[in-house]
Amino acid sequence: MGENFKEKLARVEAFVFDVDGVMTDGGIMPLPDGDFIRRYYAKDGYALSYAIKHGYKVCVITGGFGATLLSRMKRLGVEYLYHNCMDKIAAIDDFCRRAGVNIENTIYMGDDIPDLECMRKVGIPVCPADACPEVAEAACYVSQFSGGYGCVRDIVEQVLRAHGTWALDSKGTISDDSVASR
Amino acid sequence: MGENFKEKLARVEAFVFDVDGVMTDGGIMPLPDGDFIRRYYAKDGYALSYAIKHGYKVCVITGGFGATLLSRMKRLGVEYLYHNCMDKIAAIDDFCRRAGVNIENTIYMGDDIPDLECMRKVGIPVCPADACPEVAEAACYVSQFSGGYGCVRDIVEQVLRAHGTWALDSKGTISDDSVASR
Amino acid sequence: MGENFKEKLARVEAFVFDVDGVMTDGGIMPLPDGDFIRRYYAKDGYALSYAIKHGYKVCVITGGFGATLLSRMKRLGVEYLYHNCMDKIAAIDDFCRRAGVNIENTIYMGDDIPDLECMRKVGIPVCPADACPEVAEAACYVSQFSGGYGCVRDIVEQVLRAHGTWALDSKGTISDDSVASR
Amino acid sequence: MGENFKEKLARVEAFVFDVDGVMTDGGIMPLPDGDFIRRYYAKDGYALSYAIKHGYKVCVITGGFGATLLSRMKRLGVEYLYHNCMDKIAAIDDFCRRAGVNIENTIYMGDDIPDLECMRKVGIPVCPADACPEVAEAACYVSQFSGGYGCVRDIVEQVLRAHGTWALDSKGTISDDSVASR
Repeated sequence: MGENFKEKLARVEAFVFDVDGVMTDGGIMPLPDGDFIRRYYAKDGYALSYAIKHGYKVCVITGGFGATLLSRMKRLGVEYLYHNCMDKIAAIDDFCRRAGVNIENTIYMGDDIPDLECMRKVGIPVCPADACPEVAEAACYVSQFSGGYGCVRDIVEQVLRAHGTWALDSKGTISDDSVASR
Repeated sequence: MGENFKEKLARVEAFVFDVDGVMTDGGIMPLPDGDFIRRYYAKDGYALSYAIKHGYKVCVITGGFGATLLSRMKRLGVEYLYHNCMDKIAAIDDFCRRAGVNIENTIYMGDDIPDLECMRKVGIPVCPADACPEVAEAACYVSQFSGGYGCVRDIVEQVLRAHGTWALDSKGTISDDSVASR
Repeated sequence: MGENFKEKLARVEAFVFDVDGVMTDGGIMPLPDGDFIRRYYAKDGYALSYAIKHGYKVCVITGGFGATLLSRMKRLGVEYLYHNCMDKIAAIDDFCRRAGVNIENTIYMGDDIPDLECMRKVGIPVCPADACPEVAEAACYVSQFSGGYGCVRDIVEQVLRAHGTWALDSKGTISDDSVASR
Repeated sequence: MGENFKEKLARVEAFVFDVDGVMTDGGIMPLPDGDFIRRYYAKDGYALSYAIKHGYKVCVITGGFGATLLSRMKRLGVEYLYHNCMDKIAAIDDFCRRAGVNIENTIYMGDDIPDLECMRKVGIPVCPADACPEVAEAACYVSQFSGGYGCVRDIVEQVLRAHGTWALDSKGTISDDSVASR
């Protein structure tokens, strides 16, 4: 009680993110083969991958699905992924148990009605600038950045700055296994 | 006569939507195989799917076509779909008859000249912020949201709020048949 | 001399458009197979197709290429197409001769340096809001709409309004050959 | 010391660009086959290709990869490409040696943490309007244009204007080998 946002940031152990409208701008582009194109954001990806490499627990819980979603999460290094998920509360409980993190020290970033229950359960609920009103109401912090345009980067960077671990190196770069060519 | 917009909302039985410029931002991205990529919006999809699951009649009438359009509509649960449609008036009449709804209690949301006849025929014509001037003129309500960026969500949410049925649960989430993985 | 823009519009016989940055927002999205995704705009397409069906001569001249470009132009009904074009002046001369139109009564809408020669040759050079400065300088009219977001619609609509032929019917709708399904 | 930006421009021999967030708006759209869609900008491409044809050395260094990235760079005529690159400093040193350019007379445009080392090493570090704060801090010039929306065009055009070589002809147009069709 009376704890301010900066104090909350100091005790963050883990991040949980929704995909559509958080890691993307909410655009869904169906492909003929049944999969979807989503637009992720390089600066978000850099921060997420950097945080994972520096030991933070990162979880993604989404009603979305598709091979492109799985491949993006794998490349970012996301270890805890609940996709095509109809019960986000069960998923977040499972994540906290498996990862050994305290839900009070967990950030959840969501943008729409299906995120409300999780927003109310975690210690540190946050959202993008363009979250729906119910979610913004439930958040203790509303990013100035919208979904797919830096809201993920914003919250990851704030936590890591609070811990003094931001921008120590270039570890967030996501590489392929193939060698660089000229 | 003298009926205000809130009173109109109270008697809505059904929704009819155009696709390009309403459910999307009007962007058309042709693919080599003859199909198209369109960008739909997750928050619109959530509201549409939620409304359908709560018993509202939802119809889509569009001059557009393609497998990705059909697949998006199927996934949202849209039961009444008229695509590649050259006669929108015939389509809306057919919809009202089949679904057993009164056209006076039907919302039509369109954005361009081919929507004008339907706008003038239904009881409650509405449009996105970026509709063409002729359509905005014919509408009894112009959403503050543009096509593909929340105009569908806006009108669905307003109707369901008027009926006290908005955000009762998370039923709008669109799931695949496959099981969630960790 | 002293002829104002409205007077120019009254004598328009033909339209010539560039593609990238005019019919699109300048975004080029390469695909693995060597083709490209471009984002066209439904309201532009409606106006173009409507103008063609009402007898206007419409020509597209572009340095761009690819199967998706050809397929979009075919669907719009564009009869005069010069793609992968390195000599836009030769193309516009060829168009005027083949279509039997006076270059003085021709609108050219371009957005970048390769359009400058044509802008200076036609009677009525126009451009999108986001054309490069050299092109905006050469234009007798700068649309308030940007490339891919309505600049084509704007100029077509202005000409057809000047001729009293805009919005007489819904003929701009682009249909597939297949039949509409429910 | 005391040298202003215009004086720096006068001595530019070479350009080095990052891809994601510089040549694109930072959007990453994974495809089912493991490749990515990125949105490049036609006006940027025109300027880059024009500069290369007029003898400037242009290098691209990126942590990104994929066949569409390679194909875009090839089409632009980029001779010096370091993709899937985990060591940007080694890459820029290799480029300067191979191309025979002085790093003091080299422009580097980056937008995120992995660009910081190169920004600090080259003579003329610049960045897009939406670069991260650390990069903007390290830049001697911040373009008014964002990544994927003209920041590349802006810096190329400024250098070539300073040298009197901008817009001498239409050489930036990127063509395919096939012939133009009507």
